[in-house]
Amino acid sequence: MAGGIGSRFWPMSSPEKPKQFLDVLGCGKTLIQLTLARFRTVVPPENVWVVTSQRYESLVREQLPEVPARNVLLEPCRRNTAPCICYVSWKIKKQNPRANIVVAPSDHVIGDVDAFRSAVNDALEFAAETDAIVTLGIKPTRPETGYGYIKADLGFSSSRKKNIFRVDEFREKPTAEVAEGYVKQGNYLWNAGIFIWSVSTIINAFRVYEPELSAMFEDLMPCYDTPDEQAQIDKLYPECKDISVDYAIMEKAEEVFVYPADFGWSDLGSWGSLRQQVKQDAYGNACIGPDISLYDSHNCIVHATEEKKVVVQGLDGYIVAEKDGTLLICRLSEEQRIKLFH
Amino acid sequence: MAGGIGSRFWPMSSPEKPKQFLDVLGCGKTLIQLTLARFRTVVPPENVWVVTSQRYESLVREQLPEVPARNVLLEPCRRNTAPCICYVSWKIKKQNPRANIVVAPSDHVIGDVDAFRSAVNDALEFAAETDAIVTLGIKPTRPETGYGYIKADLGFSSSRKKNIFRVDEFREKPTAEVAEGYVKQGNYLWNAGIFIWSVSTIINAFRVYEPELSAMFEDLMPCYDTPDEQAQIDKLYPECKDISVDYAIMEKAEEVFVYPADFGWSDLGSWGSLRQQVKQDAYGNACIGPDISLYDSHNCIVHATEEKKVVVQGLDGYIVAEKDGTLLICRLSEEQRIKLFH
Repeated sequence: MAGGIGSRFWPMSSPEKPKQFLDVLGCGKTLIQLTLARFRTVVPPENVWVVTSQRYESLVREQLPEVPARNVLLEPCRRNTAPCICYVSWKIKKQNPRANIVVAPSDHVIGDVDAFRSAVNDALEFAAETDAIVTLGIKPTRPETGYGYIKADLGFSSSRKKNIFRVDEFREKPTAEVAEGYVKQGNYLWNAGIFIWSVSTIINAFRVYEPELSAMFEDLMPCYDTPDEQAQIDKLYPECKDISVDYAIMEKAEEVFVYPADFGWSDLGSWGSLRQQVKQDAYGNACIGPDISLYDSHNCIVHATEEKKVVVQGLDGYIVAEKDGTLLICRLSEEQRIKLFH
Repeated sequence: MAGGIGSRFWPMSSPEKPKQFLDVLGCGKTLIQLTLARFRTVVPPENVWVVTSQRYESLVREQLPEVPARNVLLEPCRRNTAPCICYVSWKIKKQNPRANIVVAPSDHVIGDVDAFRSAVNDALEFAAETDAIVTLGIKPTRPETGYGYIKADLGFSSSRKKNIFRVDEFREKPTAEVAEGYVKQGNYLWNAGIFIWSVSTIINAFRVYEPELSAMFEDLMPCYDTPDEQAQIDKLYPECKDISVDYAIMEKAEEVFVYPADFGWSDLGSWGSLRQQVKQDAYGNACIGPDISLYDSHNCIVHATEEKKVVVQGLDGYIVAEKDGTLLICRLSEEQRIKLFH
């Protein structure tokens, strides 16, 4: 899934080039390239599908040349995750009705890639043998209020996999107090938006819980991989309900499982979370750019990959970001206001 | 005098383009252009002389096309104000031995231009009629420790001009305590480095107090305005003593007078002084650039003429300056450290 517009990372990201297409970590690879690399030993690139906006087609082709052009699906407009997943599921079903699928955002970071692969492979094995809908649940490291939580029934592990558990329920982003309780209780996990299932399982779920949506993409089966496909999608996609797969499927389905994982994960949903993912100096500063010098500064994130030189003196807890002639300086604690600034 | 290298205003100014050649105030004119404009009704542009570094020749020619090329004198190296003034004085003497001269830095700001012109014209009249060395003394508005002071003998005004007084002595940059005393006493004025004298007066002063320097430029008289001039200057100028006109002449000469002036002056020697010269918003912020938005910010100076957009949130008392791919963020109170940063 590569359709996000990255509005929280202005001015680093912009609707013209959102964060999945940027080298956010300053490691030489963009987030979507890191995502593909993460799946290298899980799935060959010809079996990778990218669903993105039409405006990002050339960015995807340029950054992921290994992925076949026919596997890049282009949304004419944003309609949340359910239509996106339904579309690609029918496309995959047409190609291989026995496929197993991992659905993953393209703009997250994973710390321990080997642990991630092992979790995904485990979950894929389980999904292939059952009708289970599996989600990866991240063991929370702090009472984060910016994520949704999954309540796991830790007393009820699957008979086939001891480390996969039934989901009790999905919980919306909590208040700070509630989040504290979740972390203490130990059976609440972060919902990372990573799903594993067989194509037949997810198609059946769409047929049951979103029959109209499912029927729409099923009806298009004959025109998939024909010159008419894009025109049909352009016509019909805007009519899809704007709904997340969490609401449409996960919260309603019966056989929902969670795989508690501990591989270091962030959705990079904020400058604060980016700061935590990047190597910090002894004073908690994270700097991404060719020549950044800090004096008397603490707990800052400085992202200035296009500036030849940056000198910061005397800041504590600030974002400094420069991109394409636009400069932002903002307290990290006020970063939710960034959307209002541009 | 246009040879300064503006190291305190990095990254706005740089040795390649120091502050006299920049539109520091964001008014559409560079400081040297404002300086020339200030003298418009005092002296015609063909009588304006610019002494600058060879590396700034094209900047001067480009920014001051009204000044004749032969009036732009090029130093092969920096040798402080005494050699610069001695050179141009002999050049002027050759052209008109009865000339009167105003010596002025090219990178200062003057608030009330009419009051400035009236002070200069008054002082010129006085200098023309006498052998006086006249300096403009700025009535101090605060106990500034960054300027030198002139102690005026306010009981001894000149018989010809009631508002021109004998100088008791020149004082170096004082401590804060001493500066407080100066301001209270009322007879101490800021030394603005603006001098008025006849060419014969200053030449005689150089002959008396800096005979070697004077002899050097006198010996060059035959080659002035010949193709050989620059080569001779390039050869001999580096041998000049590195000394200010204040040390060389002002502190030694007998007939030194001061004209107390009150026209609003700043040497723009610091980001702090620039902030005070630029229109501030209600929160004490001075912004120079096409699109600068401040939130929850006070007492800042933001200079970003090349950035398309700047957003600053939550800063109090900071410099934010961007130029040519270089960004500086620094507390105003720490600006003396800027030289160490680049």
